[in-house]
This record gives sequence, C-alpha cells and structure tokens, in this order.
Amino acid sequence: MIQQLIQNIKKTKAPVCVGLDPMLSYIPEYILQASFKTFGETLEGAADAIWNFNKEIIDYTWELVPCVKPQIAMYEQFGTWGLLAYEKTVRYCQEKGLLVIGDAKRGDIGSTSAAYATAHLGKVMVGNALCTAFNTDFLTVNPYLGTDGVKPFVDVCKAEDKGLFVLVKTSNPSSGEFQDKTFEGRPLYELVAEKVVEWGRDCMDGSYSNVGAVVGATYPEMSAVLRKQMPHTYFLVPGYGAQGATAKDLKPCFNEDGLGAIINSSRGIIAAYKQEKYAKFGPEHFAEASRQAVLDMAADIGSVL
Amino acid sequence: MIQQLIQNIKKTKAPVCVGLDPMLSYIPEYILQASFKTFGETLEGAADAIWNFNKEIIDYTWELVPCVKPQIAMYEQFGTWGLLAYEKTVRYCQEKGLLVIGDAKRGDIGSTSAAYATAHLGKVMVGNALCTAFNTDFLTVNPYLGTDGVKPFVDVCKAEDKGLFVLVKTSNPSSGEFQDKTFEGRPLYELVAEKVVEWGRDCMDGSYSNVGAVVGATYPEMSAVLRKQMPHTYFLVPGYGAQGATAKDLKPCFNEDGLGAIINSSRGIIAAYKQEKYAKFGPEHFAEASRQAVLDMAADIGSVL
Repeated sequence: MIQQLIQNIKKTKAPVCVGLDPMLSYIPEYILQASFKTFGETLEGAADAIWNFNKEIIDYTWELVPCVKPQIAMYEQFGTWGLLAYEKTVRYCQEKGLLVIGDAKRGDIGSTSAAYATAHLGKVMVGNALCTAFNTDFLTVNPYLGTDGVKPFVDVCKAEDKGLFVLVKTSNPSSGEFQDKTFEGRPLYELVAEKVVEWGRDCMDGSYSNVGAVVGATYPEMSAVLRKQMPHTYFLVPGYGAQGATAKDLKPCFNEDGLGAIINSSRGIIAAYKQEKYAKFGPEHFAEASRQAVLDMAADIGSVL
Repeated sequence: MIQQLIQNIKKTKAPVCVGLDPMLSYIPEYILQASFKTFGETLEGAADAIWNFNKEIIDYTWELVPCVKPQIAMYEQFGTWGLLAYEKTVRYCQEKGLLVIGDAKRGDIGSTSAAYATAHLGKVMVGNALCTAFNTDFLTVNPYLGTDGVKPFVDVCKAEDKGLFVLVKTSNPSSGEFQDKTFEGRPLYELVAEKVVEWGRDCMDGSYSNVGAVVGATYPEMSAVLRKQMPHTYFLVPGYGAQGATAKDLKPCFNEDGLGAIINSSRGIIAAYKQEKYAKFGPEHFAEASRQAVLDMAADIGSVL
C-alpha cells in the first residue's frame, strides 16, 4: 500500500494530503441553505451540506494530490448521517484514484482493536458473505494500549495490503505532556517510535513499511531525531499552515531521497477562501481557492526539498 | 452525572456494568437467521441481529444494574448500519433508566476532540437548531495527546452534566509497555492519574468528580496505588471475568465507603449461555443466562465489599 502512495506522490510531485475536516462554519452559506431547504436544519441536512462541500473540493483538487485525509470526528458529530457522508466521501475519492487516510486514531485492547481494524481497513463475515464497512486505505492508530492493541491493525494491513500511521509525536501544544516524558533519558515518543519500527518490520512494501507514524511538523528538532530513528517509516505530518509549521519545519521529516513524508493541511486548504490571500475567489468559488492553496502548498514544500 | 450513577448503584446494590459488546459469534443462530431472512447476509442484517440480541439482554437485566457500556467498535465494524444499532441500543437503555457509558476511547487534538465530545456527549448547532448525535451519559477517552486533547471533553461534561472515564491503566497484557514506563521513579499511569485528578477538580458532583478513570482489574497492586492517589475519582474497571480478574482483585478499586468503582463484564454476561456453568439455559434462553450471570457477579463482588 505504501508503494501506491509513493507512486501517487511521484506522479503529482506533491507530498500533500488534503485534510477533509469540514466544519459547518467553513461551508459557504448558499450550500448550507440549499441542504437545509431539502433536509431541514437537521443532522441529515448538515451531512448533505458536508458532502456537497467535499465533493466540490475533491473535483477541484483530485489530480493535484496523492491522497486525502478525512477526520472522522468531523462527521461523527453528525451521527450516522455524518458517517454516511464520510463513507460517500471515501468512496468518491477512491473512484478518483485518491488514496484515503481515515483519521480515526482508534486503539483499544486486542479484540476491540480487531473490530476497529475490520471497520476501517478490513472485511467482516456476515453469515457466508464478506462485507466491508468504511474501507479506507490507511488508518491512524493510537498506541497507548501497547502491542496487543496495535497488532490487530497490523494483521489486517498484512492481509488486505493496507497501511497505518501510528501516533508517535502529535502536533498539538500539549503533546509533550506525556509524549516528551523521559524514561532512562529517552522520551516516550522515541520508545513508541521503536515499537512502530518493530511492528512495521514484517510489513515492508519496497523500502518503506506499511506501518507509518504520525509526526507533527510543529516540533522540527524532534522530527529530525525520529527521521534518523525510523528510516523506513513513512511519516504523516500534521501541523503545517493553520497550526503554525512552515515549509522549513517540514524538511527534517523527509529522507534524502525526497520521500518519507506526506504533509497534511486541512483548514488551510478547505477553508482557503476565508483567508485574505484567497479572498478574491469569494464563497462561490471556494473550491478554486482550495485548488490554488494546494498549488501554493506544493510549491512551498517543493522549495525546501 | 456521577451522582446519578452512584444513586443507580445504591438502588441496585450492584456496582456492575453490562458490557454490550456483541460479536456475531455470541448471537444465537436463530436470531441471526431471522435477521438474515429479512435483510440478507448484509451489514443491515448483522445490525438487526445485534439489536435484537441486545434488546433481549437489556429486557432481562435492566433492573439489576446501574449502567451499560456498549463498545462502539463492535458496532462500527458494521458501518453506519452498525452505528444505527448502537444508537438504538443507547436510546433503549436510557428509556429503561440505565446510564450509558459509550466506550469509544476517543482522543485527538483540541478542535477534533471538541467534535468527538459533541458527537458523543454534546449538542451540535445546525443552522438555528440544536441537534444531538449519539448522546451517551459517559464516554471513555484516551489521554495520549495531553491536556488540550482532553479539555474539550471536560468542557462538554461541565456544560451538559455528563461524565468521562479517561484511560489510566488498561487491563490488557501489553498495557505496561508504555503505561508502566517510569519517569523519575513514577510510572506513566501515575502521571496520567495526576492529570485526571487535575482535569476533574472543577467538575465535582458531590464527593466524586465527573471525570473518572479507566483502571483495569488485572493489575490489583496498581489499582491500590491509584485508589489512594485519586480518592475522588470514580473508576471504570474492565478485566473481571473473561479477562481473568477475580472479585478479590477488585477490592483495591473501591473506597472504604464501598463506592468509587463500577465493574464491567462483557463476554461473561452477554455470552454467558456459552459457558458450561450456564449451558442449561440453552441458546433460546440466552438472556436468562445473562440475567443469572449478572446476579452471580453482583453476589461475587458483594462478598468482598
């Protein structure tokens, strides 16, 4: 699976992931009103607006990027209607040839993680029929429960040729609270990184593993250490743009071959038309603003690689 | 919210939580076949079977216990159909007066955690309408991202009088891999516990906080330390029964007032009819077997309090 991502990155020349994390406040009023007119001010109405918003952004950006990353929380808040919009978004992106990273950060004890792995990456047997639920290409996973909580995800990756990104060092301000605590001189995120390498060892796909890591762009010195520690691990890198990291901060996430990292931007792309820089597009052309933001981001990252 | 749980515990005299974690393999064949006949061997068919199975267990146990804990992964694996069964289960339990602990172990960066908090505990504004999605009474939360990842859940608890159980020390075999690592002589789970106490401090509801902790029953020496460290924190305790912990192992989770812990059992109750001990009930009376398993569990725990 990771080779498919690499091929897509090489084809688009853009290690850029569009974070499809729609908030209602990002969606232009005319889209919201059209959905509310049909479905009312309901969860169904919100989900319809999200889907229409996503679809247009995808239509304007799909050939520029290798992948998208819908954040499932943004859909889950609208209940099963929201999750239907998530599913529809995943399917539509895959039809366009985009790889989809389900950003769900799931993780539990073994048997429960197995159910999550089935939900998002695998197949479930119902009677004699094999069924799929969300069926994304990659999934983000939380490691707090240790190996037996992560192993079921790795097993499904092996069986179905899918990929993971395990949280190692996250981009948020409090990420250091536990992740930076040092045990015998080494921070927790390095210990987690060590395990991620171990979990990924028999999941190799070319020179990279299908078990990747989430490494926030907001802590570049730590990215540099992790890059050395995990030469065969792909990094999913949040934190660029709206969260404050610049292209220079991203450099340490990449290997010398220019590979090894895929950079996500959510708000900075999907709500680009709300920025002064892209205001000229106006709400009616929000998806063109997103397209321009993707082009600008790819150029910005390209300038440091 | 935690006072409502305590009242329910006092009323039922059973600090027992029924884990509604249905696997298709737990569901008697005649229930599966009836659902497959109507809906086919599909996700919809699986979800219907799960709902029928849950409903009967709830009907036979609701007046014996204070709360239930559906594990959302078991529903999520059947996609949006499964999540509709989750929602239906939550509503049905609440109608019976049961409190519902959504076991979702969500956790992310701030804005995303806020969306999860909305999804599971809060309300979301759609146009001018306030809508609710899953609307459980409590939610389990993963602390790996630190304070800014947990704070949005705490905020919703305050606004809506809901409760949390934050993962501190989990019951699974690998839980020690990261959670037991020591920082200046103190294991990570104690550092997390310290934060849970801090997060819960301005969320008090009587002598306990609405911010509780998940503390596995399988490590009783650690439970004893945590009980002392967190006297005003309610513990949600997994690991009894199928995972190996006995009533004696639970004792350290309780305070001297006999309160402070709610013990979950999933497989041991909902699949009781598959155990030799309850085999006499047979698959047709699986819910009566569950009822007996609840009574036996309550008596077992009562014997050590």
